[in-house]
Amino acid sequence: MSTEFAARLDAYRERLAAALDRFLPPQEQYPARLHQAMRYACDGGKRLRPLLVYLCGEVLELDPAVLDAPACAVELIHAYSLVHDDLPAMDNDDLRRGRPTTHKAYDEATAILVGDGLQALAFAVLSQDHGDGLHAAQRLRMVQILAEAAGSRGMVGGQAVDLQSHNRHLTVAELEALHIHKTGALIRACLRLACTAAPLIGLAHHDALDRYGKCIGLAFQIQDDILDIEGSSATLGKTAGKDKAHGKSTYPALLGLSAARARAEELFDQARAALTPLGAQARPLLDFIEMIQVRNR
Amino acid sequence: MSTEFAARLDAYRERLAAALDRFLPPQEQYPARLHQAMRYACDGGKRLRPLLVYLCGEVLELDPAVLDAPACAVELIHAYSLVHDDLPAMDNDDLRRGRPTTHKAYDEATAILVGDGLQALAFAVLSQDHGDGLHAAQRLRMVQILAEAAGSRGMVGGQAVDLQSHNRHLTVAELEALHIHKTGALIRACLRLACTAAPLIGLAHHDALDRYGKCIGLAFQIQDDILDIEGSSATLGKTAGKDKAHGKSTYPALLGLSAARARAEELFDQARAALTPLGAQARPLLDFIEMIQVRNR
Repeated sequence: MSTEFAARLDAYRERLAAALDRFLPPQEQYPARLHQAMRYACDGGKRLRPLLVYLCGEVLELDPAVLDAPACAVELIHAYSLVHDDLPAMDNDDLRRGRPTTHKAYDEATAILVGDGLQALAFAVLSQDHGDGLHAAQRLRMVQILAEAAGSRGMVGGQAVDLQSHNRHLTVAELEALHIHKTGALIRACLRLACTAAPLIGLAHHDALDRYGKCIGLAFQIQDDILDIEGSSATLGKTAGKDKAHGKSTYPALLGLSAARARAEELFDQARAALTPLGAQARPLLDFIEMIQVRNR
Repeated sequence: MSTEFAARLDAYRERLAAALDRFLPPQEQYPARLHQAMRYACDGGKRLRPLLVYLCGEVLELDPAVLDAPACAVELIHAYSLVHDDLPAMDNDDLRRGRPTTHKAYDEATAILVGDGLQALAFAVLSQDHGDGLHAAQRLRMVQILAEAAGSRGMVGGQAVDLQSHNRHLTVAELEALHIHKTGALIRACLRLACTAAPLIGLAHHDALDRYGKCIGLAFQIQDDILDIEGSSATLGKTAGKDKAHGKSTYPALLGLSAARARAEELFDQARAALTPLGAQARPLLDFIEMIQVRNR
């Protein structure tokens, strides 16, 4: 990764942190403990989803200001999903982003409400007029994209299938269907949200970016499965080895480590190929692949 | 309540059930168990919030078809909040609407995901174009009203304060603040949603309906507190007497039963008075007060 690209990513991360700080209720606002916990749950992380929104915006030559709301909204949904996934009744995890999970730092009831509140906030953020020049029809379309990606036919549905799959052997096709929902839907939404801010985008470019989103969403999950085996809890900032402990079907478990790695590489190649219609303009999203290909957390 | 009004309410309940059936994912759709549980959680109940949306629509002379989406959205949010409130980490309740709560009928993880999925669906429903003639700006405003009413500065915030208040003595002012958030925000949103579908509504009428919503939201919660003491679990369809068991501050506990009743009546009077600017047009919302004044569940 070039230092110039790394600097741009850092600038986007700062931009996102500032926008989240504007959109999250002040932590002294009633009810203060809940608002403090909501901020706790949104702190840290790799911010890959909002980075994808901003980088897709570069490809489409958009002012990043029009993407602050969708970038925050998608991160709020992601953060809420982690809080709920970590609950005792779900994955029962104590460690996230190198710190105690929200139900450990606060309590279970607060963690449930933090997730509920973050989800509502994501839609509030998309629905407000931030003076960014987006039209009502565009913002409404963003609400629709995010609601469908986050819902029972997307992320929440994938999580439900994941929980039912513990200690059950899945086929590769079943596992891919699970991950297309659980992880893929929200990653794909990042590209679709950015496209919605570019009303003049041609259908070929729109479809190219959508295909890219679909491929990296799945590749990303295969990487996660591999890192769960190969990584340490210290590097990951979350408990390593928990897939095996939960008897989960994973790509490495089904295919073996080297075939899982090859499948991820194949999907990254397909994602690159999908961008061909965009030519040299696609550079930021090719750089994004290069960055996540070597990630270790 | 006149038989003619009762028949109209029944027709609205049927209308709502048909609309919910259209909007909820088919129960055989992947993931089937989750979609079945989402439908279970939306079954039954008094449907007071959607009734309010439709009755406010009568006052504003709206075609009920433009209110199907907001009426369903508000009921989806209400249904999700009950599923999460009943969880072991929250109110830990086994009985709701005369049947096992969702986490009892399914399991805890499924109940968390049912709530999450129903909330996302509420916003998906508002964001889709149903061919009902609502403009994007109106539907976007509905998303905003609902997201704010449901979020940490509304319903979810009230629930957080409620949980922190167990075994603590609240002042009447603190209790009212809690209930204005926990119950009041979503009831008030019903009126605001209907008003949004009437773009030519004058400010005086808008404010009158908003004040009505605020008053009945609080009166409704006081009634709930009274019914928790006086009602039986069989009539209520949920566990009676649980406020006291949880050491909750309630209106009857703070004021005594007869003063609590007087406070509810006072709020109903204020709600009626708020409607004065609407004259005879306000009849459906006056009838609604009459109906809930005598409710026993």
